[in-house]
Amino acid sequence: MERPDHDLAFMLQYENIAWYEDGAVRILDRRCYPRTVSFVTCRTHGEVAQAIADMVTQSAGPYPAAAMGMALAAYECQNESEEKQRAFLTAAAERISTARPTTAKRMARVCETMLAAAETAWRSGASVPEAIKRRAIEANDSRYRKIAKIAAHLVDKFPDDGTILTQCFAETIVGMMLRESKERGKRLRIFCPETRPYFQGARLTATVCYEMGFDVTVITDNMPAFVMQRERVDVFTSAADAITMDGYVVNKVGTFQIAIAAKHLGVPYYVTGVPDTVHPTIGDVQIEFRDPAFVLEAMGVKTARDGVKGYYPAFDITPPELVTGVVTDKGILSPYRLSDYGARDAYEVVV
Amino acid sequence: MERPDHDLAFMLQYENIAWYEDGAVRILDRRCYPRTVSFVTCRTHGEVAQAIADMVTQSAGPYPAAAMGMALAAYECQNESEEKQRAFLTAAAERISTARPTTAKRMARVCETMLAAAETAWRSGASVPEAIKRRAIEANDSRYRKIAKIAAHLVDKFPDDGTILTQCFAETIVGMMLRESKERGKRLRIFCPETRPYFQGARLTATVCYEMGFDVTVITDNMPAFVMQRERVDVFTSAADAITMDGYVVNKVGTFQIAIAAKHLGVPYYVTGVPDTVHPTIGDVQIEFRDPAFVLEAMGVKTARDGVKGYYPAFDITPPELVTGVVTDKGILSPYRLSDYGARDAYEVVV
Repeated sequence: MERPDHDLAFMLQYENIAWYEDGAVRILDRRCYPRTVSFVTCRTHGEVAQAIADMVTQSAGPYPAAAMGMALAAYECQNESEEKQRAFLTAAAERISTARPTTAKRMARVCETMLAAAETAWRSGASVPEAIKRRAIEANDSRYRKIAKIAAHLVDKFPDDGTILTQCFAETIVGMMLRESKERGKRLRIFCPETRPYFQGARLTATVCYEMGFDVTVITDNMPAFVMQRERVDVFTSAADAITMDGYVVNKVGTFQIAIAAKHLGVPYYVTGVPDTVHPTIGDVQIEFRDPAFVLEAMGVKTARDGVKGYYPAFDITPPELVTGVVTDKGILSPYRLSDYGARDAYEVVV
Repeated sequence: MERPDHDLAFMLQYENIAWYEDGAVRILDRRCYPRTVSFVTCRTHGEVAQAIADMVTQSAGPYPAAAMGMALAAYECQNESEEKQRAFLTAAAERISTARPTTAKRMARVCETMLAAAETAWRSGASVPEAIKRRAIEANDSRYRKIAKIAAHLVDKFPDDGTILTQCFAETIVGMMLRESKERGKRLRIFCPETRPYFQGARLTATVCYEMGFDVTVITDNMPAFVMQRERVDVFTSAADAITMDGYVVNKVGTFQIAIAAKHLGVPYYVTGVPDTVHPTIGDVQIEFRDPAFVLEAMGVKTARDGVKGYYPAFDITPPELVTGVVTDKGILSPYRLSDYGARDAYEVVV
């Protein structure tokens, strides 16, 4: 994907998105951001797959990276026969999709969309790499338009002088929510829990808020209830890794306890995203446990003595009774009426 | 204080207590414990005051350190006239008490107790330094006996195979609670939130639990609600920096939101300590804010970019409706009936 110059280009710097430039895909290395701003340069689709596997980019970042990886693959094989190109691109799609097991299905969907663009190009005699790049940009623009609508509905719920509590880092929706707030002249104070063990809130969310000119304060993950009460938080908001059709929110661990405290203190909780038709109920959602060693260290420094165990659920589950509203591109829905949303588009919104 | 050899001596290693040895007071340096086990050696009462000011010892640690600092002062002036000794000890009491402003009143009470022991010694012609050392040991033993009673009442609430959630580090009560549980043959799993920003839970509580042979797991501060639900926590327990007579608990920030989640999930919350007659109501308690820079780093490594603000309330306030019971040495009281406890002893229990 060439670096787009449309009005959403400003987002790229905040959402670790990758782009195509001078024969390579450049991906912001979010493992060390913002302490160090550096980019991983991938000259082959294999290097893109490796960067995804190595967690260079996270959250929504792997999807555009995968799309651009497919464009790189098309450049790699452009002097071959159509048949060989097709085989090469199919293998590339497999390699990129399986870079990380938990997102393989969604990644495969992105790569299939790019393969379809290649088929169209072969039929019309157009440049295959150019067609894939164009399709990748279109897909991303469509995603941006959807998230911009979500942001508009969310910001409707913010007072003109408001205090907002976030949770973890949802790059695109955070950026769009801030841009929308700015355009409407809202003066917001934003509190960002640091989000252990990876500090995404301190490192990433707070950086975006600061760079976009907002009053932003980092708190540790034991402070949200205190802050909601003492600093009179108006809205608690988070994105979601999944919103099941029966109204449960699967999101970064910690969301559940903030939602409990928000309910107790009378603070509304708005979750952004689109109901996930692949999960009709919460029953089939498995909480992923990650390497407990990460909980026993902070910024690379060990915190507990040897022998002490760690415990690292990546997500938790917030039930619908704690959710004030699900903010979609089609408006704000009750968590009990998510079937009102209708069918989900093929290229999914990843907030 | 010479290192006591009574049956509570094992506690010393866990509670950063100081003791008198070969003309010096040695204090476990809790700033780097357990990564490094080192002791600060103080050869004068002035060095003890400095160690207290420098946060070498924390929580309940400064009180016995102050008492032993007074014994050191008595050695320093033992060849002077009684009048000069009295002036020297009075000045030493002032210097030690004011080492840290927030605890000055309680520290002064400890030093006054030691001065009274000196007066008795002068009247009877006994050794003043020896009398102060003996009084310091007695005071500590009396405190231990009280906390042992609190621990016994608390452990009554633990099932034989139980899962316990802690909060921060309350050295003596944690150690006594574990010893009591062990003696009764209780098999406990213990979950310790790490307690940002200083990681007392990960560094200290978890170490004590591990070294006393319990199954201990550190979690980050965003996980208590998830753990209470998923791991079926039987009891949430914490100590308190103050329990006001109208039933509010002032304790390490985070206690409030765990208590909210515990109530929501039906997990009982038992707070250990003695109602604080100097605080008839919560109205006169001021929450202390500390240097926000500590929230913007972890284990000495910066987490957020320059310009982002931090926010560091040291404590939060948990209202009585979230407290199942206040576990005192005289039994478990309703937070609404704390006047039943009666008057507090002169040498206060500091759990």
